[in-house]
Order: sequence, then C-alpha cells, then structure tokens
Amino acid sequence: MLKEAVLHRHGSDWVYALNRLEIVFRLRTGKNDLTGASLLWMDKYRVIREKPVNQTLPLVRVASDELFDYWEVVMKPEGRSLYYLFELSDIGSRLYYGNCGFYRQLPEEFRNWYEMPYLNEQDVFTLPDWAYDAVVYQVFPERFENGDKSNDPEGVSDWYGKVSSKTMLGGDLEGVIRRMDHIEALGANTIYLTPIFESETNHKYNIVDYYRVDPHFGDLETLRRLTSEAHRRGMRIVLDAVFNHCGTGFFAFRDLLENQEKSAYREWFDVRKFPVRVKDYPNYASYSYFGSMPKLMTKNPEVAKYLLEVSKYWIREADIDGWRIDVATEVDHRFWRDFRIAVKTLKPDALIVGEIWHDAAPWLSGDQFDTTMNYPFRQAVIGFTATGEISVTRFDEVLGELRGNYKRQAWLALWNLLGSHDTERFLYLCKGNRDMAKAGVLLLMTLPGTPMIYYGDEVGMTGGPDPDCRRGMIWDEAKQDREMLAFYRDAIGLRRRYRCLRRGDFETVYCRDDVCVYGFRRSDEAGSLDVYLNAGNEPHEIRFSGSVDACDLLSGRIYSSAEGSGSITLESLKPVVIEWRKPE
Amino acid sequence: MLKEAVLHRHGSDWVYALNRLEIVFRLRTGKNDLTGASLLWMDKYRVIREKPVNQTLPLVRVASDELFDYWEVVMKPEGRSLYYLFELSDIGSRLYYGNCGFYRQLPEEFRNWYEMPYLNEQDVFTLPDWAYDAVVYQVFPERFENGDKSNDPEGVSDWYGKVSSKTMLGGDLEGVIRRMDHIEALGANTIYLTPIFESETNHKYNIVDYYRVDPHFGDLETLRRLTSEAHRRGMRIVLDAVFNHCGTGFFAFRDLLENQEKSAYREWFDVRKFPVRVKDYPNYASYSYFGSMPKLMTKNPEVAKYLLEVSKYWIREADIDGWRIDVATEVDHRFWRDFRIAVKTLKPDALIVGEIWHDAAPWLSGDQFDTTMNYPFRQAVIGFTATGEISVTRFDEVLGELRGNYKRQAWLALWNLLGSHDTERFLYLCKGNRDMAKAGVLLLMTLPGTPMIYYGDEVGMTGGPDPDCRRGMIWDEAKQDREMLAFYRDAIGLRRRYRCLRRGDFETVYCRDDVCVYGFRRSDEAGSLDVYLNAGNEPHEIRFSGSVDACDLLSGRIYSSAEGSGSITLESLKPVVIEWRKPE
Repeated sequence: MLKEAVLHRHGSDWVYALNRLEIVFRLRTGKNDLTGASLLWMDKYRVIREKPVNQTLPLVRVASDELFDYWEVVMKPEGRSLYYLFELSDIGSRLYYGNCGFYRQLPEEFRNWYEMPYLNEQDVFTLPDWAYDAVVYQVFPERFENGDKSNDPEGVSDWYGKVSSKTMLGGDLEGVIRRMDHIEALGANTIYLTPIFESETNHKYNIVDYYRVDPHFGDLETLRRLTSEAHRRGMRIVLDAVFNHCGTGFFAFRDLLENQEKSAYREWFDVRKFPVRVKDYPNYASYSYFGSMPKLMTKNPEVAKYLLEVSKYWIREADIDGWRIDVATEVDHRFWRDFRIAVKTLKPDALIVGEIWHDAAPWLSGDQFDTTMNYPFRQAVIGFTATGEISVTRFDEVLGELRGNYKRQAWLALWNLLGSHDTERFLYLCKGNRDMAKAGVLLLMTLPGTPMIYYGDEVGMTGGPDPDCRRGMIWDEAKQDREMLAFYRDAIGLRRRYRCLRRGDFETVYCRDDVCVYGFRRSDEAGSLDVYLNAGNEPHEIRFSGSVDACDLLSGRIYSSAEGSGSITLESLKPVVIEWRKPE
Repeated sequence: MLKEAVLHRHGSDWVYALNRLEIVFRLRTGKNDLTGASLLWMDKYRVIREKPVNQTLPLVRVASDELFDYWEVVMKPEGRSLYYLFELSDIGSRLYYGNCGFYRQLPEEFRNWYEMPYLNEQDVFTLPDWAYDAVVYQVFPERFENGDKSNDPEGVSDWYGKVSSKTMLGGDLEGVIRRMDHIEALGANTIYLTPIFESETNHKYNIVDYYRVDPHFGDLETLRRLTSEAHRRGMRIVLDAVFNHCGTGFFAFRDLLENQEKSAYREWFDVRKFPVRVKDYPNYASYSYFGSMPKLMTKNPEVAKYLLEVSKYWIREADIDGWRIDVATEVDHRFWRDFRIAVKTLKPDALIVGEIWHDAAPWLSGDQFDTTMNYPFRQAVIGFTATGEISVTRFDEVLGELRGNYKRQAWLALWNLLGSHDTERFLYLCKGNRDMAKAGVLLLMTLPGTPMIYYGDEVGMTGGPDPDCRRGMIWDEAKQDREMLAFYRDAIGLRRRYRCLRRGDFETVYCRDDVCVYGFRRSDEAGSLDVYLNAGNEPHEIRFSGSVDACDLLSGRIYSSAEGSGSITLESLKPVVIEWRKPE
C-alpha cells in the first residue's frame, strides 16, 4: 500500500458538513492502490460510559486523477461527536489509518483515532439553491447593446468595427433590458455584468464612484428596472465587485494626490514614497503595475467598512442577486469573511463568485466565496478539443482533480467557462471550426458545474485576446450563426429539462485515448444520461447490450438493440446525449 | 521520484506570511526521496511588460517524519505578486512541480505555475512576542493554596488527603497571590488558571455566572490584585474560557427549565424535546452526555454576543493576558474568528490557546487560535521515556511531524505539556522513577514550544487519572521533593538564559535506536546548544572531534578534547546540555 499517497486531515475540508444533518468523510489514496476503504466510527462520549459499538460504512471511489483516487462517504452523526478512522484494504493486506498514522491492528487508544467534534450549523457551507440551476450569461455592457443613444460617450465607434483598448461603442444597461428576451430565449437565467460603476474606461475596472452607475450606462433607476425585469422573468443579476483597487479618480485617491502626506485618506493606500507618482511604475501598491489602479488597503478598517457598505448598498437599493469578485486572491481573507457575512446577512440567497484562475479551494471552504470562475475547466476543454494537446485520459484526470479538490457544494456549482472578457473566445481557439466549438459547448452544458456563456459566443462571435474578444455583440441576424444559436438553445434546454445534468452525480463510463472518445454519465434519483464525444477524426462505434433503446436527445435518433445488443456510431465531433429507454 | 508524496497547495498553509515582509514556501516530499529542491519565482505582473527573470532559491529540509521530508524557504516578495514553482531533483532526474502537476521542462504557461497573490498584512499570523518567552504554570485553583479561609466552601477536606470528584479543599485566588513567589522563583512567567467563575463544582467547568468570580475563590477585586501582582513581576495571567457549554445554574438555562417552550432563552440551547430532561442522557445538546453541561448555541447571535462580551469584560476589568479555550473543537469556527477579533482588538498582545487533543492545524492558520495544548508532544515524551513504547526514531518522527504540521509562528509556541488536570501526572506514568521524570522535564524545557508545568509536578507530586491528579498542592517542605524542585529551577533557568532554547531552530543530531540515545541542537544567531538524552539502561559514549570543550550546563562538567578528539559519557537517564567552547 502506498502510504505516502494517503491523505485525510480531521477538522479540515477532508471532513465537512454537507448540510445540517450530514457529514462527508473524504480520503485520498494512491491511484488504483486499494481494493476498498471503510469508515469506522463510534460515539466519542459513549466510550466513557459503556462499551462502544464500532460502526462501519464503506467508502465509494468518486473520482481519480493522474496520481490519486478520491473516496467519500456521507453519514448522519445525529448530534453526536465521533471518533473515526479508515480501514484500507489492498490485495492481501489491511491497514487502519488514523490520527497518528497507520496501524496493523485496530488501535485501542482513541488519541489514535480521528475526531469529528460536532456538527455546528455555523460551519455548514451553504450555497443558494438557485446556484445549482443557474445558466450564466456574461455581459460586457459597453459592447452588448446600445439601448439609449442619449447617454453615449463622445466619439462612439462603428458597432461592428475592430475594437482597441480605447474604443467606445455606447452599450448600456438599457441595452441589456431591451435584449433580455434574447438571453431568456437562449435559456440562461443569470446575468453577470462586468463593472457598471462610474469609470473612464470601457471596461470600468478602475472605478471612480462606487455609488454611481456609470452615466454612459444609465443610473440607479435603470439598474432597478434591469433587476426587476430580470426577477419578473425568474432571472438573476450578478454584478462585478472591484474591491482590490479603485481608479485614480476615486475621491480618496484624488484627495491623496491633492494633499499628499497630509491627506486624510493616506492610509487608504500603500504609498511607498511621496510625492505620489502615477505614471510608469507607480510608487504605491496597485493592481499589477498599473498606476491607474491603486490598491485599496482593506486592512484599514475605514476602507473595509466603506467597501462593505458598497456591497450592501447595491443589494438594498437595486436588489441584485450576487457579486462576482474581481482579483479575489489579492485581497485579504479576513475582508472576504466579513464580506460574506455582510452580504449573506442582508440577502441570504445572494451568490458570491470569486475570480480565481488557479485552484480556489482555500477560498471555498465555506467562510469566503460560494464558487469561482473555473478557468482550469476551460483549459482542459480547450486542450481536449480545440488544440488536442491533452489526451482523453488527461481530460478525465483534470475533471477528477476538480472533484477531488472541492467540497461537493462548490463542485456542483463551479462557474465553468469556455472564454471571458479576459481570454480569447472559444471559437477563435477552435480556429473557426464550428463543430469543435459545439462539442465544447455540449461539454459545458453537461459536465458538473454552472455553465457560463460569454456574450456572443452563442451567435458565433470570434475574437483573439483582449481587446479583440470584446467586440460589439452581433445583433444583425444575417451576421449571426443561427445554427450555433439553435445548438446553444438545444444544449441549454437539455440541461434545464434534466435535473441530473444540473445536480446529478458524475461517473466516467468511456475513456479511450487511441480513438479519442470520452463518455460520462450524469445521474440522480430520477434517472441518468450518458454523454459521448468523439474528438478524433474517424467515426467510432460503441456497442451496448440488453433489451434497451439508446435515444440521442440531441439528434432525436434512436439506436435500437437487436437480439440483445446494439451500437451507436459516434461521428467525429458530433456528441450524443443518450437516454436509455425500454423499447416500446 | 515519488510523485504521490509531493504536496504543496497555493493560497494555503503551505505558503504563508511569517511577518509583514517575509513569505514561507513549504513543500512536502517522500522521505529521503530528493537530493534537493528549489523555489523558482518571478514577478507576476512584470511578465506582462518585459522578459521576466527567473529567480532561484534553494529549499532547506527542515524536518522529517515516518514518511515525509518537509522543506522550507523564506523570501521577501517586496510588494510583488509572484508566479512560482518548485524544481525537484533526485539522483539523475529533475522535475518541475507547479499548479497543474509535474513537468519535465520548465512550463512556459503561467497557469502551470503557482501564484502568490499578495502579502496582505491582515493575513499575517501574529502571536504576541511574549508567547515565545513564556514558561507556563498551570494552577487548578481549588487545590493550589487556601489563602483566605473566610471564603471556604462548607465541609472542606484534609488538604493532603485523598481527593474524590466531590472533594473541596478551599483553594482560592488569594492563595495564588500568596504563592506567587514560589511560581516566580521556579522561573515560570505565565500562570494559566483553570476556570474561576461561579460554579458549584470544584473544577468549575459548569459555569453559573460568567461575570462573577466564584465566591469561594474571591471576587473581582481579588482577581485584579492577582493580575496586577503578576504584572508587577513581569508575569502574565491566562484564564479558562468555557464557552462550549454552561452549567445548569446559568441564568438562561434556569429560565429554560422554568418556562420550557416559552423561555426567551429557548434558542440559546438545542432542546430536542420538551419538557427538558437533565438527568441521565439529557434531551438537549450538551458536553458529552453530561446534563450538567448544556451546550451553548453559538450560532445564535445573542449567545455569540453574550460570550464575546464576557471575553472582553475580563480583559477590560481585570487586565488578564489571554484565554485558554475549553473544548475548543466543538464550537464553530466562525465564533472563534469573531472571538479572536474581539480579544485582539481590545488587547493586541493577548494570547489565545485552544484545548485541542489532536492535530490542531485547522485552528492555527492565523484566523482563530494562537496555539494549542500540545498533547501529541506529551504522548511522544511518555512513549520515549516513561513507557518506552516508542523508539528514538519514532520520537524524532513525531517531533518532525509537529514541525511539518504547523506554521512556524505556532510551532515555536505550542503549549507543550507532560500532564494536566485531565491526565495522569507524569511522575505517576514514570512509576515514581524520578530520573525518568527529570529526563522528561528536560525535554520539555529544551525542545521547541512553550513549556507548561502542572502545579506540583515541580515538587514531586504524583497522581493517577482525574480526580487523583488534582490533589492538594504540597507546600510542606518536608513532603516536597526539593531535589526535583532544584532540577526544575535549573532547567527553566537554562531556557530563560539561552534564547536559542526559546526561539532557536531545531535539528536532530543523534538518533540511535540500538542504544536509545537521542540528541538535538537548538540554535540561533547567538549560538547553539546540544541536548543529549540516553533513555537506555547502559551508559553510552558519544565522541566529538576538534579543538573544543564540551561544557554540560546541567552538571557544570567540562569534557575536553585531547589530541583533537574527546568523548562524553551519557549515563542512563542523565541528560546533558552541551555548550561547545573554545578551550581557554
């Protein structure tokens, strides 16, 4: 047994409350190293009074990545504190794994067992229930739709022209309201807007006034109409919280520039030397080395209070449904803990999404964010489809690692994306190959996690790295890829119709590097669906047995079995979503 | 290379701020698997503008346990965000280890590097500086000294008699004040008192009134005199915070008993069924199944507020220096985070010590406790000395594991103990063997961590499990083990005189299972000391070379080298503390 691969840590994310009743026990072991694993537990305090009874529960291997298997079991402690440990079996041997290591015999002393102290409701990581049904549509407001020409900035460019980092097209909130039918018809039910507060740039990530909707976008009244229009349709609005840094026009930074050392807001920033230098490498802490984005010192209680008030203001005044957190990792954890409490106290079903490009587990323990933008998912899908850089096996391993890294609550609601305002568009990476793009979209809509659609992807927009990925939305139907749009609607429709695609478990059922075919199953109490994708160039036949029909929900085609067996031909880049049905 | 053994996780305790300037990067690898490891890093945001320069820093192997080596390096990011990864070398091969796994070539894409986002001061885990110089003396007040006979409970028993769970001896705070000379002369500078608030029991872990010193112990005035007397001597007072549960006499629980479902304090407790049943297995959440200790629902904001006010009240009113947290693991993490903020805001150099019997790392990240009672240390010392159950190697491995499990800040201030009011006394476990007890005491005073002395151990008190370990303190000099007392004073004196024993680094220098001899070095900028203990039965000679004298600071004996080499004879259970000196 590969002891070095075994991992569990009590009091950590390896044992956590799923809800007010259930505890998940997790264990990592070497890949294919064990034949089985069990949880042994007993009531911690009964051992003081009476002979304890060991209880045993088998663990289930729920995921694997390159090096490890991940095991889980869920149990209801019913108000008890527990002692527990794991029994690990491989061929011919058995070890017990507890607080102080490995044992050949079941250890008698309880200090060698792990402890599950108490299920405290306060420590339960709870996401709003709607998070698990969300289909997110990301809008970059300056480029989505110009709904109100009267608030356009000066020098607006041609809507369908090439865009630079300075381009202004005149998009606004009125445009989002006007185009909500499009978003709703697509099947999305959550709109994430990149920043909308006053700022000189088109992206508005350098905010001048946190309390004012950018005048080129509208005003508080427009935002209120937007959220109420969304809510009327059962949709939700998530705004972008840029709290790591502000713009140089922010009142406190203006005061600093004017009064230098004597500014009352000196401690809102981290100035290394006076006088303050904005150009070139600034002499104060900033986002990257951008003088235009001075870092806000959230360690200063005044700053923290100011930003917490902002976060509450827009919930209270405009009834928004959540915050996406910009540059989440560069702000201190204590601030995010306070932020969570402030937001959730005011609106318990608000959602908090961190922008984290790497593994986000330290922020997803339950005390900070609900979920994260899942860039590692994007990278894996690109590698498996667009670039072909990773094998089917490696793709499967990355999915296994994501499951292994996160609590189940977050894992099922990770904001999966294929592209954003910060990356190339997916179709661009597919070099315009629409079948390949569709294959990626189907993975997005059927794998565990919340799908995010970057505005315009659904009508076949393309674009390289920022600023090219921020072109004006294509509204001209003649210019839209209507077939792509139909595919998006179908795939989202499937997701919305089948609960197992949103909340169901996940299992790999087919993984062949030689032919580049991947298959997985999503299942819940109500049933299951099998998704297959052939990312290779040649058709591939998969065979099935039993008296059952395979119905591909995408094409509507039915593959029947004859004399107890049947087959499905997977064409290159034509995914299928199979529902198994009894023949009529 | 054993990839499965390699562990690092960005944004976690594996990369953390040591102070406002320095970041510690940590890595775990398989035991003896690598020949070397380095940190490679570059400025995260300069890569956007210019060709980045890789910087390399070698990691140092700082500890080992049974399966793993632990590596560390400290660097100053100087306000920068970093990309980093590790270069791992074994004989003949080299791998890079980053965010997405292992690479044969240095990965070009930064998503495959780890990220160190920003050193936020708020996230720095800071203990009060005095914690690193503390020598703790634990007092169980009812049994320490009866300083005021006028406040004795009824039916006080014979001071030196056998004690039961109901015995009252009449000890009080006046007694602690009166005997502070003893504690100070011993060399201790921090007094930890088990609970002192109003409660019917002798241990006072079922509190009736959190705002009142138990009348048998004194009053607010007595406590104020105690802390000011301690402070006058440069000593500190830590009280016991029993916030997991109260006693049945607590006003809120009395109201619950009286008004049942209609009680305004119904939500302060977790009652599963009315009417409330106190006897036998209570029908409400409690500590263990003790009806006498109803669990307080800290998830209820009223309860949390009440307890936070209590924690501040005693700092404000009596100027106490810290809290030891009873049953720390059974209360929710959020409460402890709020507790830390409340306590540290009021008194930044207050210390918070959790009672955690297992691995305490999840509570010692920096957001909750400063340190913990280090029971695993106790277990290891007992195994190595009193029972001989573990080998020298295993003892060394446990010490390595402790270093590997905790941030450096906490590791150097873990409250190491040989016994407490909840365990057998150390001398009892040594079956009265005083040399063995002294050997354990020397380890306590010289190994990394804060030594805790359980009252009376220093005068040779013995006693089995609770209640026997809670006998009346021996003040009669004729009954005291004066030689033991002198040994304690000497050993503590050494610790107080040599900074390296308090704050220095640790290194194993001798580890021989065949002869049961262990040697380690503590060192800082000023110098180093080597400690050797022969836990075997036969004398053992260790040889040294060079023109140097070995001075044993315990015996004062000097071992000189002749013709470039010398030797020290280690008698069984007679530890030496060697200072290497140039011959005069």
